[in-house]
Amino acid sequence: MNGELICEGKRVHYEIHGSGERTILLLNGLMMTTASWKPFRKELSRDSTLVLTDFFDQGRSERLPDGYTHSVQVALVEAVAQELERRHGRSRFALAGLSYGGEIAIQYTLAYPQRVRRLILANTAGRTSSWLRTVGEGWNAAARSGSGEHYYLAAIPGIYSTRFFEERADWMAEREQALVRYFSQPEVLERMIRLTDSSRDYDVVHRLGEIACPTLILSGSEDGLVPVTEQQLLHERISGSVHVTLNGSGHASMYEVPDAFAALVAGFAALGDQSISI
Amino acid sequence: MNGELICEGKRVHYEIHGSGERTILLLNGLMMTTASWKPFRKELSRDSTLVLTDFFDQGRSERLPDGYTHSVQVALVEAVAQELERRHGRSRFALAGLSYGGEIAIQYTLAYPQRVRRLILANTAGRTSSWLRTVGEGWNAAARSGSGEHYYLAAIPGIYSTRFFEERADWMAEREQALVRYFSQPEVLERMIRLTDSSRDYDVVHRLGEIACPTLILSGSEDGLVPVTEQQLLHERISGSVHVTLNGSGHASMYEVPDAFAALVAGFAALGDQSISI
Amino acid sequence: MNGELICEGKRVHYEIHGSGERTILLLNGLMMTTASWKPFRKELSRDSTLVLTDFFDQGRSERLPDGYTHSVQVALVEAVAQELERRHGRSRFALAGLSYGGEIAIQYTLAYPQRVRRLILANTAGRTSSWLRTVGEGWNAAARSGSGEHYYLAAIPGIYSTRFFEERADWMAEREQALVRYFSQPEVLERMIRLTDSSRDYDVVHRLGEIACPTLILSGSEDGLVPVTEQQLLHERISGSVHVTLNGSGHASMYEVPDAFAALVAGFAALGDQSISI
Amino acid sequence: MNGELICEGKRVHYEIHGSGERTILLLNGLMMTTASWKPFRKELSRDSTLVLTDFFDQGRSERLPDGYTHSVQVALVEAVAQELERRHGRSRFALAGLSYGGEIAIQYTLAYPQRVRRLILANTAGRTSSWLRTVGEGWNAAARSGSGEHYYLAAIPGIYSTRFFEERADWMAEREQALVRYFSQPEVLERMIRLTDSSRDYDVVHRLGEIACPTLILSGSEDGLVPVTEQQLLHERISGSVHVTLNGSGHASMYEVPDAFAALVAGFAALGDQSISI
Repeated sequence: MNGELICEGKRVHYEIHGSGERTILLLNGLMMTTASWKPFRKELSRDSTLVLTDFFDQGRSERLPDGYTHSVQVALVEAVAQELERRHGRSRFALAGLSYGGEIAIQYTLAYPQRVRRLILANTAGRTSSWLRTVGEGWNAAARSGSGEHYYLAAIPGIYSTRFFEERADWMAEREQALVRYFSQPEVLERMIRLTDSSRDYDVVHRLGEIACPTLILSGSEDGLVPVTEQQLLHERISGSVHVTLNGSGHASMYEVPDAFAALVAGFAALGDQSISI
Repeated sequence: MNGELICEGKRVHYEIHGSGERTILLLNGLMMTTASWKPFRKELSRDSTLVLTDFFDQGRSERLPDGYTHSVQVALVEAVAQELERRHGRSRFALAGLSYGGEIAIQYTLAYPQRVRRLILANTAGRTSSWLRTVGEGWNAAARSGSGEHYYLAAIPGIYSTRFFEERADWMAEREQALVRYFSQPEVLERMIRLTDSSRDYDVVHRLGEIACPTLILSGSEDGLVPVTEQQLLHERISGSVHVTLNGSGHASMYEVPDAFAALVAGFAALGDQSISI
Repeated sequence: MNGELICEGKRVHYEIHGSGERTILLLNGLMMTTASWKPFRKELSRDSTLVLTDFFDQGRSERLPDGYTHSVQVALVEAVAQELERRHGRSRFALAGLSYGGEIAIQYTLAYPQRVRRLILANTAGRTSSWLRTVGEGWNAAARSGSGEHYYLAAIPGIYSTRFFEERADWMAEREQALVRYFSQPEVLERMIRLTDSSRDYDVVHRLGEIACPTLILSGSEDGLVPVTEQQLLHERISGSVHVTLNGSGHASMYEVPDAFAALVAGFAALGDQSISI
Repeated sequence: MNGELICEGKRVHYEIHGSGERTILLLNGLMMTTASWKPFRKELSRDSTLVLTDFFDQGRSERLPDGYTHSVQVALVEAVAQELERRHGRSRFALAGLSYGGEIAIQYTLAYPQRVRRLILANTAGRTSSWLRTVGEGWNAAARSGSGEHYYLAAIPGIYSTRFFEERADWMAEREQALVRYFSQPEVLERMIRLTDSSRDYDVVHRLGEIACPTLILSGSEDGLVPVTEQQLLHERISGSVHVTLNGSGHASMYEVPDAFAALVAGFAALGDQSISI
């Protein structure tokens, strides 16, 4: 089912798939929408209930005026969480996020630890490093040129691995066509700029030690955007976390190694509240 | 429930945990028994039915005279599979194995492809390399000394990572005591020698291309016994396989990173018969 | 000493540093000139003679009209080699190249194997993969915008690691200023476009097996432009090659880990004509 | 030339090869002697003067009674250094060591920093971890069995990579024969036990921050004895160190990738007293 709620005076789109006892709340990456998870809906809702949502400036959620930071997206997640509790009696969930979604997931967990049974961070950093900030400036410079083609060339190759580009050449060609068309809408590029800017000053490295729930860190060995070293930093700081590398995968790990991604998200989310003790 | 069947005229012990629609058949490593999986039973049987078995010369299955190879263990797995079909109406399953169990799992899949929905190979090689054969000779030389302490020192450190040895010093100390006592039984060392010898000429690298079901290869970054390079070989040869590295884990990955191990086995086994298509 | 010669009717700049018995010919990366090696001149000419040159469209060598490929740069290297032989009596040398320079070095070695004692390939690929071609299109799109700032943002971050960006923030800030000024010259951007285009159809993977001299492959673990996987491909195909990873280094390994870079180039170039035999 | 000096009342063997201006003092691993470096003498003394020595209980240096620690080997190195100064006017040198030799090199550098221009640590740990201590106990248990064959099987496979075992099967077979014969001498096994025991309580991790000279850390990606993680610890603690991985190499990196080993040692040792500044 699809739902809508109001947060910060704006409409927020969310979806509920399946009816399993346990709940997975899965957060989009920057350039994704709830529709991006279509290939995963069935598998991720087989034994659990899967909840998806569009962040502000994504998909079917409303636009936000310029100048916001991650905190408003954290508020959006809590609005969805309250709806889940009120309407569906689910007050706790496994929280998963990819990249931008992982960054929001970390901050949500710090703000609402009682809601998060387990945390899954895919291709996620604990901060916007000066390097990543500069990369984002490159995306925004391309966006300001107004050319969908330039934006595609600036933002997309860094997301995929060399291997995937070759093995899935047809898929990438279709995707290029679709994305260039999509990015050619001025309104879309404005949203991309705002979402990118909202990450500008993100840095929670010093607070990672507060995370207490079982946490899975999921890296792509070929991730050119959030390199494995940034994810090792998460692993070192989040006590008791486990760190898994998807070999051969770039940043968009859910598309590059879908079975491994789905297995890890569904499998880790389904485990008990405590880590397995041997 | 525990069950017993006869294969090659010998008693074979097996166990069934849970009652989920899908089935996972999980095969022991060389020095394990069905009891070794105790910490995982609950999680691996939450949404699936978990089947365990002791190989010949392990746990509660009967001893075999000297000189056998892997093929008799493959026959044992098929005997369990037939029992599952006859008594429980389950003709297909996800097949998972760790190390020795993974080696048998590969050969079982080659012999009975129609039974294996999905294949999970943890810390598994496609062959006994000349290096590994020499390591095994070292174990057997220690076993022939008759000293449980020597055998412990020869065979166990290579199974764990430096990190685990330190972080779980108490657990390792208890384990050392228990294992030295266990290995001090001449009959146990004889079984270890036979099991090790049964792997001596194992090499199915040239047949890996025949495996057609979705396959997960699960490595420990610190595996000193079956190094990641041997598992990359599996990945290169098994078309469409996915390769995941458990960072910081040695050879006994289920004990070193239990949540990641359980998430991957349960999660991958629960996916559909086909790989997710994007 | 600086020298000049004519190749393809155009002036070519080269330099000779030191007077050691053995010779190292070191080839620039795409965005470099002979001046970029200034910090390395002393160390690389301590025990050997160091020869540097600017490719066409680089530094003090002349421009070339649009539409050339790598082959003309290979011809330039042979022109320098002939000058070395004629004027300095040096007919053989260790050949080293970084990135674009490594690509030319491979092709030179295939064309003039008798001249190359030893080959050193730093941050080098055996082909322009479809992924790398798309990245180059992004650079050229930014170049065609005519903005030095856009070009900097499109082309430079991918060359450095996250770690280096942070540890050397002051150096990067100076460099940004200098490069934005440099790239703001239309003539410079035109050269960059031509150099990038000259790599478009580069692919010698199928010929790598012909290389017979001792070869060193030198990777940066954090190289976001020529990922380690591409350099593993060189290693697999070049028989008897050795493959070394500079941990923590991005694509510009000579700047990120200068001591390790200089040690490997000077040390490997100084070894005898045959690999050490044990 | 070969030389002999007296340290702690015992004869110490040392050798000087070549006559280059700069000096490399290269320290043996546990199971090596000065003779083990024979394939490297020529290359390492081409542009530098190479100094080798046997530790107490190695090769042509005298035996020591049971119960010593690393400190007596550090004293031996200083005795060699004083001889170098007195007889050859060389008061400073690049200090390199492999494994056991690297451990002594670290402690020598901490004790005599004014003598060490540059430090090279190949396959070296900053401590004897509890894991490594247990491995050493396994070696000593095999040694106490009195069987050269057992000792070979216990101690040698962990030193080489799977790849090397296969590619150099003939060399390994010869080596096995020679080593089994060598280890079959009771006196040799006694020395091995004492050398291994001398490392038992080694731990200088907390002092690594005091090392101020340019330092190279050289790992083998397949080192099963001193895993890369232990060498990352050196890199993190020794400020300004560079960390290089020799891909495909096990613990005996000088034998597995001789050209890369020689290039790094000779090249790094020849650089100036200060790290190259860019």
